Amino acid sequence: MTEPMRADLSGVDELTANLTHRVCVGDQSSRNAVVYGDRMALIDGPTRISYRELESLANAVGRGLRDLGVQRGDRVALALQNRWEFVVTFFGCAKLGAIVVPLNVALMPAELTFQLDDSGASVLVTEQPLLALAEAAVRGTGVRDVRVVGAAPATVGDVPAAPWESLIAVDDSRLEVIVEDRDVLHCLYTSGTTSAPKGVLTSHVAVQLGALSSALAFGLRADVDESVMPLVLPMFHVTALDAILLSSLVTGMTVLLHRGFDPAAVAQNFVDHPVTHLTMLPAMWGALLQQPALGQADTGRLVSGCYAMAPMPADLLAALRARFPQAAFILGSGQTETTPASQMQWVGHQGTKDDSWGPAVATTEVQVMGPDARLLERGQEGEIVYRTPQLMDGYWHNPEANAESLAGGWFHGGDIGYLDEDGVVWFTDRSKDMVKTGGENVSSVEVERILLAHEAVAECAVVGRPDERWGEAVTAYVVLGADTTATRDELRAHCREHLAGFKVPKTIELVDALPKTATGKIRKVELRG
Amino acid sequence: MTEPMRADLSGVDELTANLTHRVCVGDQSSRNAVVYGDRMALIDGPTRISYRELESLANAVGRGLRDLGVQRGDRVALALQNRWEFVVTFFGCAKLGAIVVPLNVALMPAELTFQLDDSGASVLVTEQPLLALAEAAVRGTGVRDVRVVGAAPATVGDVPAAPWESLIAVDDSRLEVIVEDRDVLHCLYTSGTTSAPKGVLTSHVAVQLGALSSALAFGLRADVDESVMPLVLPMFHVTALDAILLSSLVTGMTVLLHRGFDPAAVAQNFVDHPVTHLTMLPAMWGALLQQPALGQADTGRLVSGCYAMAPMPADLLAALRARFPQAAFILGSGQTETTPASQMQWVGHQGTKDDSWGPAVATTEVQVMGPDARLLERGQEGEIVYRTPQLMDGYWHNPEANAESLAGGWFHGGDIGYLDEDGVVWFTDRSKDMVKTGGENVSSVEVERILLAHEAVAECAVVGRPDERWGEAVTAYVVLGADTTATRDELRAHCREHLAGFKVPKTIELVDALPKTATGKIRKVELRG
Repeated sequence: MTEPMRADLSGVDELTANLTHRVCVGDQSSRNAVVYGDRMALIDGPTRISYRELESLANAVGRGLRDLGVQRGDRVALALQNRWEFVVTFFGCAKLGAIVVPLNVALMPAELTFQLDDSGASVLVTEQPLLALAEAAVRGTGVRDVRVVGAAPATVGDVPAAPWESLIAVDDSRLEVIVEDRDVLHCLYTSGTTSAPKGVLTSHVAVQLGALSSALAFGLRADVDESVMPLVLPMFHVTALDAILLSSLVTGMTVLLHRGFDPAAVAQNFVDHPVTHLTMLPAMWGALLQQPALGQADTGRLVSGCYAMAPMPADLLAALRARFPQAAFILGSGQTETTPASQMQWVGHQGTKDDSWGPAVATTEVQVMGPDARLLERGQEGEIVYRTPQLMDGYWHNPEANAESLAGGWFHGGDIGYLDEDGVVWFTDRSKDMVKTGGENVSSVEVERILLAHEAVAECAVVGRPDERWGEAVTAYVVLGADTTATRDELRAHCREHLAGFKVPKTIELVDALPKTATGKIRKVELRG
Repeated sequence: MTEPMRADLSGVDELTANLTHRVCVGDQSSRNAVVYGDRMALIDGPTRISYRELESLANAVGRGLRDLGVQRGDRVALALQNRWEFVVTFFGCAKLGAIVVPLNVALMPAELTFQLDDSGASVLVTEQPLLALAEAAVRGTGVRDVRVVGAAPATVGDVPAAPWESLIAVDDSRLEVIVEDRDVLHCLYTSGTTSAPKGVLTSHVAVQLGALSSALAFGLRADVDESVMPLVLPMFHVTALDAILLSSLVTGMTVLLHRGFDPAAVAQNFVDHPVTHLTMLPAMWGALLQQPALGQADTGRLVSGCYAMAPMPADLLAALRARFPQAAFILGSGQTETTPASQMQWVGHQGTKDDSWGPAVATTEVQVMGPDARLLERGQEGEIVYRTPQLMDGYWHNPEANAESLAGGWFHGGDIGYLDEDGVVWFTDRSKDMVKTGGENVSSVEVERILLAHEAVAECAVVGRPDERWGEAVTAYVVLGADTTATRDELRAHCREHLAGFKVPKTIELVDALPKTATGKIRKVELRG
């Protein structure tokens, strides 16, 4: 028996061994402060936070959370729009080993209540404009402390509240506690196809690798020029948080934070700053092009225009390439479970493979699997599957979903497609019954369940149909029961009452019958068109 | 007590859970094969190995090693120059979870015997031109099997031998065994200052992060053009193996392998290939400039000219920038213990901070520590210290060195310097008694011990002195005893007999006395000049 080859650290205290070797995303802030120092990390309206200040604030807030009793492994939920306090709290939690639970503030209160309960969050950080949502969501959960950016009431729901600023401890020296590579850093909820949303548990090592692989795929580099990027997509989603924000901070960029999408404000960024990078949804790019302010801007500084989730209409792509002559426009795709970018188009494929997903990023292997769980050859269509150290640890409280997602030894992303001879992934269909709309995932079944609860609806099918604005538009095909006078407006009002706004069908089509297989299963592929 | 937030993978078999999530450097080859396919990975004289072939061969050799009885954690030593079989064997071991022990073939046989024994290597892979060295080194060690590239005798030393090709199993399908993030991938020996060489244990996660951070610092990207790089530095050192080879393969480059440095052959690469990247020692760059063949080459394709270990003379740098007008010439520095690049100059600092070490790479924090183990402010000189997940796990069989290297909670690199206001590291002196010469580390004490063993030597001090060719030249100051007629040539011959060639002093100065402190300690700083 060979002696196992392990380093003997018996003379080193546990904390030193951890601090010197570990992967902890909180350390990225410390590293950045040394190299980027007084360069601006975040600009949020009038507030400018340098890399050095970000590090100082993150340590102070980490200490403030610890003073509240938050420990390694405890959950801190964020109901926040994009603002600098989000980033500070995120890094503070990362340094403390606390788990961040970013909440989608476009959801219904009851949905947030579920996520607060399911994750076991003990602290909620929110902001004044979202107080009504937070108030409705937090009641009856395990949350025992709410911190509010902006004017804070004494309680939120039935929970004691205080200003977010009170988390900033006087001591901003480096917070040094044990955090391991595979500790969970964040839990993001993703829509299930048939069940409740699932908490996706993502480790520090997955997030660190995701930031590096995205930076490499975007061609980001710290050493040539200072780079500036508006951040429009919400940080409560993994794309904005891990692929965009963190890859940008790793490479010393200045990030301009936007709350929601205001195309005039994005255009103004081009007037006020040398914007070099920008990632948005295709429809947002279209809206940006319409802005008169863009005419006064230097649009020649943009080197990378990325778009997420769905191919871009060819005429829009052509218009963008004309307007931003130095920029490559490339599609990035991925999902919460893969932290997140799995594929990124190559600059060298522009104009020839614009409708593809591009090849896998450096840390990710993409393959295509047949129905017998064997990997297929190039050109053969099947399930797109992944292996990558960026993969989530697994779903929370859901061993069945974990087993199902890894069937056959690979992670199933829920998409159908093939690999071409250049290793480029081409998406052809979806195997999971989801609609990807405006950067959000919507479960068809959830929307169908609400429609079927209306007494007038006999049958229905919800699919995503290609849409220039939304990527896919949630579209419902409804067969009404006999003797009903219900209208589409009535059905839409019913949906609005029971569903978050982004889940409400953009179109409701009343039809006589739904296309079905011989065995009576609805043929959704015909409806997706 | 909050329920720990861990994914429940009870429904997933252990191998699937490992393969889908882990960091294993062997997987990088699989990923590369999907994306880069038939692109050439390695060109070694007439042999061309595509990314697809590299993956196939690595699996076959991993299986061949397994058939020999090599298991996860077992050690496979390589006494090889740069050749494609080195890279294949490296990835084969990585896939199998075996630990690679690359041997410096410029060392004396007894030094290799020590490394084979100390690491517990059971298999040695070598090549026909190095048989005499391998034969002398392997006797009496635990090596039970030798594989030889080229004509193989029946035994090497007293150990059964066979051709390297016999390791290539017929089955080249994917080798799937459990390998963990923090399993050791390689053990490289580094000169100690006063003791025997120390085995540096480096994990898969450190090597993976090192490859990504180096690729990011070099500005490598897969997606713009195909990139070509001659690899001149020996892969038995960490710089060539992890910072250059692996960062190149991660980004789909074509690597042109050189055995030893022949400036004419490197110049010929520029004639035959669109060379885009090249890392060499400063003196090698100087020799390349003298090559007539360069006149027939397109030197305008080179975008990155990196040099390692020592600043470049200003006139040489100017000549290079004139000859390669598109290239940034940047210094990278690091060490075996940090896998390896810790600092890399910025393109934007060219011409202004050419004599610096540049800022830390994205995965690394550099600080400067005072004598009381407190971190110092910008501009204050002290020990340069590191925290990084690229750090080695530790030294093998050496808890004392591990404790010493991490004193005060940071890894001590053995260098003195300071950080400037831009986060740039400036090296000023060495705290460890080492000479860094031609890409090798030489222990002053080892050379002094050999000199003192000569009956004519009364006192001596060995230091590195600045040298255009070697970075530092090993330089001995010797006080001869009374009544001796020994000459410098005699002393040099004595050193040659007992030391590896690169350790033999380039200059031996006979002096009447050595500069000393009041307490009698030799003042080496005066001798370094």
